[in-house]
Amino acid sequence: MAQRVREAYLRIDEVDRPEVWITLRPRAEVLAEAGRLDERMAAGERPPLAGVLVAVKDNIDVAGLPTTAGCPSFAYVPTQTATAVARLVEAGALVLGKTNLDQFATGLVGTRSPYGAVRNALDPAKISGGSSSGSAVAVALGIVDIGIGTDTAGSGRIPAAFNGIVGVKATLGLVPNTGVVPACRSYDCVTVFARTLGQAQSALATMTGPDGVDPRCRTWPADVRFAAEPVIAIPRDEDLAPLSRQARRAFGAAVSLLEESGARTEVVDVSGLLDAAKLLYDGTFVAERHAAVGEFIDSGPADLDPSVAKIIGAASALAARDHVVDLERLDHYRVSAGRTLDGCSALLLPTAPSHPTLAEVAVDPLGVNRGLGTYTNFVNLLDLAAIAVPAGTADGGPFGVSVITRAFDDQVAFDLAAVFTGEQAAELYPVGGVDLIVFGAHLRGEPLNHQLTALGARFTGEVHTAPEYRMVAIPGQPEKPGIVHTGPEDGACLPGERWVLAPAALGVFLAALPAPMSLGRITLADGSTAIGFHCDLATATTCADITGHGGWRAYLSR
Amino acid sequence: MAQRVREAYLRIDEVDRPEVWITLRPRAEVLAEAGRLDERMAAGERPPLAGVLVAVKDNIDVAGLPTTAGCPSFAYVPTQTATAVARLVEAGALVLGKTNLDQFATGLVGTRSPYGAVRNALDPAKISGGSSSGSAVAVALGIVDIGIGTDTAGSGRIPAAFNGIVGVKATLGLVPNTGVVPACRSYDCVTVFARTLGQAQSALATMTGPDGVDPRCRTWPADVRFAAEPVIAIPRDEDLAPLSRQARRAFGAAVSLLEESGARTEVVDVSGLLDAAKLLYDGTFVAERHAAVGEFIDSGPADLDPSVAKIIGAASALAARDHVVDLERLDHYRVSAGRTLDGCSALLLPTAPSHPTLAEVAVDPLGVNRGLGTYTNFVNLLDLAAIAVPAGTADGGPFGVSVITRAFDDQVAFDLAAVFTGEQAAELYPVGGVDLIVFGAHLRGEPLNHQLTALGARFTGEVHTAPEYRMVAIPGQPEKPGIVHTGPEDGACLPGERWVLAPAALGVFLAALPAPMSLGRITLADGSTAIGFHCDLATATTCADITGHGGWRAYLSR
Repeated sequence: MAQRVREAYLRIDEVDRPEVWITLRPRAEVLAEAGRLDERMAAGERPPLAGVLVAVKDNIDVAGLPTTAGCPSFAYVPTQTATAVARLVEAGALVLGKTNLDQFATGLVGTRSPYGAVRNALDPAKISGGSSSGSAVAVALGIVDIGIGTDTAGSGRIPAAFNGIVGVKATLGLVPNTGVVPACRSYDCVTVFARTLGQAQSALATMTGPDGVDPRCRTWPADVRFAAEPVIAIPRDEDLAPLSRQARRAFGAAVSLLEESGARTEVVDVSGLLDAAKLLYDGTFVAERHAAVGEFIDSGPADLDPSVAKIIGAASALAARDHVVDLERLDHYRVSAGRTLDGCSALLLPTAPSHPTLAEVAVDPLGVNRGLGTYTNFVNLLDLAAIAVPAGTADGGPFGVSVITRAFDDQVAFDLAAVFTGEQAAELYPVGGVDLIVFGAHLRGEPLNHQLTALGARFTGEVHTAPEYRMVAIPGQPEKPGIVHTGPEDGACLPGERWVLAPAALGVFLAALPAPMSLGRITLADGSTAIGFHCDLATATTCADITGHGGWRAYLSR
Repeated sequence: MAQRVREAYLRIDEVDRPEVWITLRPRAEVLAEAGRLDERMAAGERPPLAGVLVAVKDNIDVAGLPTTAGCPSFAYVPTQTATAVARLVEAGALVLGKTNLDQFATGLVGTRSPYGAVRNALDPAKISGGSSSGSAVAVALGIVDIGIGTDTAGSGRIPAAFNGIVGVKATLGLVPNTGVVPACRSYDCVTVFARTLGQAQSALATMTGPDGVDPRCRTWPADVRFAAEPVIAIPRDEDLAPLSRQARRAFGAAVSLLEESGARTEVVDVSGLLDAAKLLYDGTFVAERHAAVGEFIDSGPADLDPSVAKIIGAASALAARDHVVDLERLDHYRVSAGRTLDGCSALLLPTAPSHPTLAEVAVDPLGVNRGLGTYTNFVNLLDLAAIAVPAGTADGGPFGVSVITRAFDDQVAFDLAAVFTGEQAAELYPVGGVDLIVFGAHLRGEPLNHQLTALGARFTGEVHTAPEYRMVAIPGQPEKPGIVHTGPEDGACLPGERWVLAPAALGVFLAALPAPMSLGRITLADGSTAIGFHCDLATATTCADITGHGGWRAYLSR
């Protein structure tokens, strides 16, 4: 691992972007940690993220390093590492240091920091985007593999779009917030930047799961979807008004790419979502920021960013009764967002409306910042998940789109985002799925396959049974095969497909299963077992044996 | 139906409790409605609640009748009936009128109303409890079958305890709040009073389900429990300090009754729950009351109850940032409540700590009211469900206990509450369950039955298959039967049990099922079908046929 670490520090020198880091760990210290990792591996351990280099936004605790949240006078040295980062380190990742951010994670620009404005990785005259500016640029410049950020209004997605990388904001509550300086605790989310979706997902999966400390942690529901039919909502032309002509063209190309991948798109009116977005700063929700760090800000330290001080300071005057009214408004927005997405698996939007320069932000810091959240602000408020991915170029820089899904449909977002990165669909993110082996009318392309896909089931591979089964043809509409366990004497290896689905989906599937089919444990050719189709004795003995055809598809094409 | 209506109006005259009603419908109007109901039934309709007489708390809209919320100058005449009540009427219930309440549902005493203090049904010197005072007393006096109330802090439970009836506060969001004047919208719940659990549950089931309007409606989760092992948490002696000696004795008797019914009790420290309760009035959550009716109250109408005006009026000064802090506290309380209930299906508590007189409340209206919520205030805040039932007597009046469960475990609460009312376990409340027919080791009392009960499955009856099945004995630990579908020529009617469980539970059960068992559709003796056990061909043909024994239990006792 030492070589990787040495290269990273060389790269840090080479890119000459000191503003990326608030605390960079001494090279020797990280090298020593890499050495200990080598020892773990020499002893036979196989940490899944061995040697993955990580940059951590400086509002997330790493034991022994100061947490500044972008404000030197706020700094403290935690003794505990935040749950999310501790899980990465346990899995073999190496933390290089703590990165710059918009102070108290309040901003989407990356310029609101006494540690300096973070310049864009690709064009230093442009902003990096924020608030997770340093982590995104460290990834985009190839210093680290993974940048850990936080996201309340788009802080884990806007910088991804501006620096041409992937930014994942999973469903709220999947990754614990323990050890994170809150911005708006109800809507904060630890996020991941990476150059590939696969890397982002590995890191995210490692960080996911309740820690028994953060009371807002959630677990995967019993009916989580592992895949979805690709019906994608896209905005109306007027919803894209803030985009430049080139950006619109890039968005159109992104829509075409999705359609070429087999998705069906459906134009929806997203104005309700964009309205909800305004609640985040125009309403009382900034009171969450005051509850988090307001007392400190009210004490008037000299190193406050003027924009941040203004936004959070003003929140002390907000009334609880108005907060209640805004929460009620949000409940209604949440319901109407559900209706907007009705019949669709996801929504595709540009990640940002434009990409300002540092100079533009300096002229109008509040106005420019506000505009940037147009397509991101509503996501956390409305309990949605989103993945930002690069999608071509516009106006001389990277253009980015976001795939936005309902809560817990994160896997659906990963699958659709993979269309843009050109990656194979990533590994499975949600946990708790159950395997089901199918042999006939439920195979891909066969007439009952839709029963599986409608339940959020996911194809995961082709399999063969152990040589203990026979297949009969059951007449009907459609004709189906019946699988019979006869034992090793006269059975054959039958080809089938493995699908994974949620326990509730399996229960619903079974509850609707007609006779003579049944579901039970089947032994596969590799000796493993899984739940699969059987048929009953009366049928088995009266239908024609078609084992000799070597599978249902072969029988159909006889 | 006319006779029932006439009797109710006679009873109203007889009891001479004018303070129960704010608006009593003219007898002739209700008789006319009863006539139309008779016509519906003569035409063949069978409305499930035909002729059930209902009293509606006057903070719930009934089209054409004024809604006062206990404040004459607040009154308006709605054109739409609240969803919950409209569903009762659609099901054949007859609304007699609107009942008195603590103004704006702010109180647990039943005395805070310009329409007069509502006297207790059994002892007019004592309070009725509130805020749903009139609805409870109308039920307790035998005027109506069902009283509809609302409950934020115990308003649907305290009056049940004081008047010796049943009060059901289901999981938040199951019954829509559309058409209800909010108290604290986040924690408000429409409730049911009745003299029997069965009646309460029928009414509740009718009112349950999203209406597409109330954004806080929730649906049954895919892993809802239909039953639970009766392990009941009970409080420590010191948690019962506010109770009189007689009330403590009555609570002890209630615990004994549960234990005699087969429940196991476990003493837990409920002080965390009782602490959370204080947030409702001592913290910022009263801002919800101000958001609902604060502008009206601040306008200074003459007919405000002084206590109510004081409580709600003061809430205008509360800060949003402090509301955020309280919401965070509540999140932590919610997690620790989960831990308190760990391993238990429910918690048994007294419903109220004492039963004051009207005179005692007049002397110290705020102090007495505050004490009354000791065992109820935390329930809605922590997203729990509760059913209040009579449990003996104490201090010359009825004593009541509450069965408190996790959200969506309402059926568990009904089952345990039935121990106190002496009723047969009521019909099933949650919807969406799936039937499973078992024949052997999963029968009640057999070694694998715990697999079903651990998944929240519920026994619903004994069944026989159609005469198309044979049974074999599969050796093993434990020995199990195998059910084989052989067809009508040589099959028998085999006895089994029907269980209902959630789709997710069925999926989990199937995923853990070992070979040679499988689950598929079985035809029952009555011609219906359900999912049940099968076994595979290899086993069916190699194991001993035991069909002749007439079922697994008969085989075991051969």
